[in-house]
Amino acid sequence: MLGLLVLAGTGFTLLSWSMTHTPADLVAIVPAGGAGTRLWPLSRRSRPKFLLDLLGSGRTLLQDTADRLSPLTGERGLYVVTGVAHAGAVASQLPDLPRENLLVEPTPRDSMAAIALAAAVVEHRGGPRVVASFAADHVIPDAEGFRATVRTAITAAEAGYVTTIGIGATAPSTAFGYIERGAELAQAPGAWGVARFVEKPDAETAAAYLATGRYSWNAGMFVVRTDVLLGHLDRLQPALAAGVRELAAAWDTPRRGEVLERVWPTLIRIAIDHAIAEPVAAEGGVAVVPGGFGWDDLGDIEALAGLLRHGTAAHAGPAGDGGGAPVVVVDSPDAFVVPGPDAPAIAVVGLPGVAVVRTADALLVLSREAAQDVKTVVDRLRAIGRDDLV
Amino acid sequence: MLGLLVLAGTGFTLLSWSMTHTPADLVAIVPAGGAGTRLWPLSRRSRPKFLLDLLGSGRTLLQDTADRLSPLTGERGLYVVTGVAHAGAVASQLPDLPRENLLVEPTPRDSMAAIALAAAVVEHRGGPRVVASFAADHVIPDAEGFRATVRTAITAAEAGYVTTIGIGATAPSTAFGYIERGAELAQAPGAWGVARFVEKPDAETAAAYLATGRYSWNAGMFVVRTDVLLGHLDRLQPALAAGVRELAAAWDTPRRGEVLERVWPTLIRIAIDHAIAEPVAAEGGVAVVPGGFGWDDLGDIEALAGLLRHGTAAHAGPAGDGGGAPVVVVDSPDAFVVPGPDAPAIAVVGLPGVAVVRTADALLVLSREAAQDVKTVVDRLRAIGRDDLV
Repeated sequence: MLGLLVLAGTGFTLLSWSMTHTPADLVAIVPAGGAGTRLWPLSRRSRPKFLLDLLGSGRTLLQDTADRLSPLTGERGLYVVTGVAHAGAVASQLPDLPRENLLVEPTPRDSMAAIALAAAVVEHRGGPRVVASFAADHVIPDAEGFRATVRTAITAAEAGYVTTIGIGATAPSTAFGYIERGAELAQAPGAWGVARFVEKPDAETAAAYLATGRYSWNAGMFVVRTDVLLGHLDRLQPALAAGVRELAAAWDTPRRGEVLERVWPTLIRIAIDHAIAEPVAAEGGVAVVPGGFGWDDLGDIEALAGLLRHGTAAHAGPAGDGGGAPVVVVDSPDAFVVPGPDAPAIAVVGLPGVAVVRTADALLVLSREAAQDVKTVVDRLRAIGRDDLV
Repeated sequence: MLGLLVLAGTGFTLLSWSMTHTPADLVAIVPAGGAGTRLWPLSRRSRPKFLLDLLGSGRTLLQDTADRLSPLTGERGLYVVTGVAHAGAVASQLPDLPRENLLVEPTPRDSMAAIALAAAVVEHRGGPRVVASFAADHVIPDAEGFRATVRTAITAAEAGYVTTIGIGATAPSTAFGYIERGAELAQAPGAWGVARFVEKPDAETAAAYLATGRYSWNAGMFVVRTDVLLGHLDRLQPALAAGVRELAAAWDTPRRGEVLERVWPTLIRIAIDHAIAEPVAAEGGVAVVPGGFGWDDLGDIEALAGLLRHGTAAHAGPAGDGGGAPVVVVDSPDAFVVPGPDAPAIAVVGLPGVAVVRTADALLVLSREAAQDVKTVVDRLRAIGRDDLV
């Protein structure tokens, strides 16, 4: 049954859509990219975060993401969009990923192009359906709690909403954008209308947000019907919409290369937040499902240190031991040491909250309070022509 | 001419002794030992400080010491006393050192035994003469100023005094003992009687010392006639005196090994400060010549950092570069980085006053304020059975 609901005062139509579905109906789109600068020297341009087993779990963040999604997507429902530089590594790390589900971008065009391309290819291949987009390098220990939230979001997506998942804020972080919820949606129990998205606030504003009880963190997770997403795109970014539709029509034909070469470079570089989430939220077309699961985007060394302190760490903590070589920590509470391969003896003295991160070709010593400034190191290495190290 | 001066109220006689001498008359005794813990991981038990070129001058501290002394001693006037573990390295670093001037101790018996043995051997070989004892691992950039001070001290030593050289204190350091001077000596212009030696004071006491203008640092430098030194030893440590005299008599004979094996282990372990300097000062028999030259005992990483900041550093400072690999320092004033061999890229972020010292098998990261606590690291490595790393 298809129903049509015209929202008063907007140029936007909410297309309600009911269908029977099984948990394996979901198509998950995982854009796998990233500059790899914030976790330098562990991550690099050539081996970004998602390709690494940063938590010592035995699975990389990409593999962990695929594992977490597979009960929702089944064997054929996972799509990965990545750049040419990493396509081989992705295929190697995900041997069960159907070859046709690995979409390779010639050059990075930001998240909207990546997700829209995948959505258009999915729809072209099998008709409209619900897709969900998740980053390849986030940490979600409670996979079942995550999937329960996604299932609720699927219901809201089926009802026609661009549906995001709001992360329960555990602190007034200034590192994330926030989502303000409005009223609970009658069509989708457990989902709320999104009043607005806000960019990373200052600490005072963030604390005020948390005090209202209406804000959650924006982790860039979107669940949406392909026809709804592409329909919004037709209105809001028509050139981009036309481009990905043309690409999707040619994707499984011998013309793919020709069309990619001609169309891809013309696509606007824009994030899905700016292209779809924010304007559609202003129109009342975005829903949010608050997630109760723990989440971390591993945005810097400080985040990694926090996770390894509380989780299952392969890396050495303060009293740790890296592959036989001793790590001695003296008068340095909350020191965090990643001893790296073939570790020498490492001693840390009189430096509370220091992080020491060692790899084969680089050593980072930083105050965990300055974790965000690692980017400056990468910038300086580039400035002196040492791109081989970044 | 020999004159005899009996000091009132003591059991000690000051034997005045005049002779003509040339600058090359001095015999310098350099005890070369040390545990190597305070500059870990640069120095080790197996390669103590004196064997290292810590300042990047191209000469090790031992070689620099020999260079500084050679205008005073000539080619045959330098004696080095060292342990069996380092005898080969000393001989290799000082190829011009006469083989018979390298005195090898079977086991460490502290500074009094080492210096007394050398003094006794020197006197047995050529009769009484002035000897001077200097550490093998101190830094004295103004070699000529140092030698001028030693020449003044030689005059006081010829007059019968155990003569020490007082280092001009540049700060109320708590890391050194102090020498309080009394009245200037008529027999030796530029030399003063020593009122007393005091152990390392607290900061308040040190500041009070400096305010009087009568105190200088004790660097353990002694200039003395062999007959005066051994005479004091006969009275104050008769067993030790008898032991070194017996050793000296046997040294250049086939009996050396037998006597060493029998006598050496019986010698008391005592520092020259406690055995001679302090009790003889109380008797009025010690003189001090204040030195105007700069001096540093490289007591810890902080001292090394200070010297390299102001001197000719081969090691990388904040903007430095270790053998081609970049050192990037961000928001870390007074950071000190020793990148070590085959250096990886090293980045330091947000850590004012940090020291990062890297060697082939160890990495030390410490607050320079905690420089003295490096010993704790060495202790812990020993405690976990990693003597190979200390």
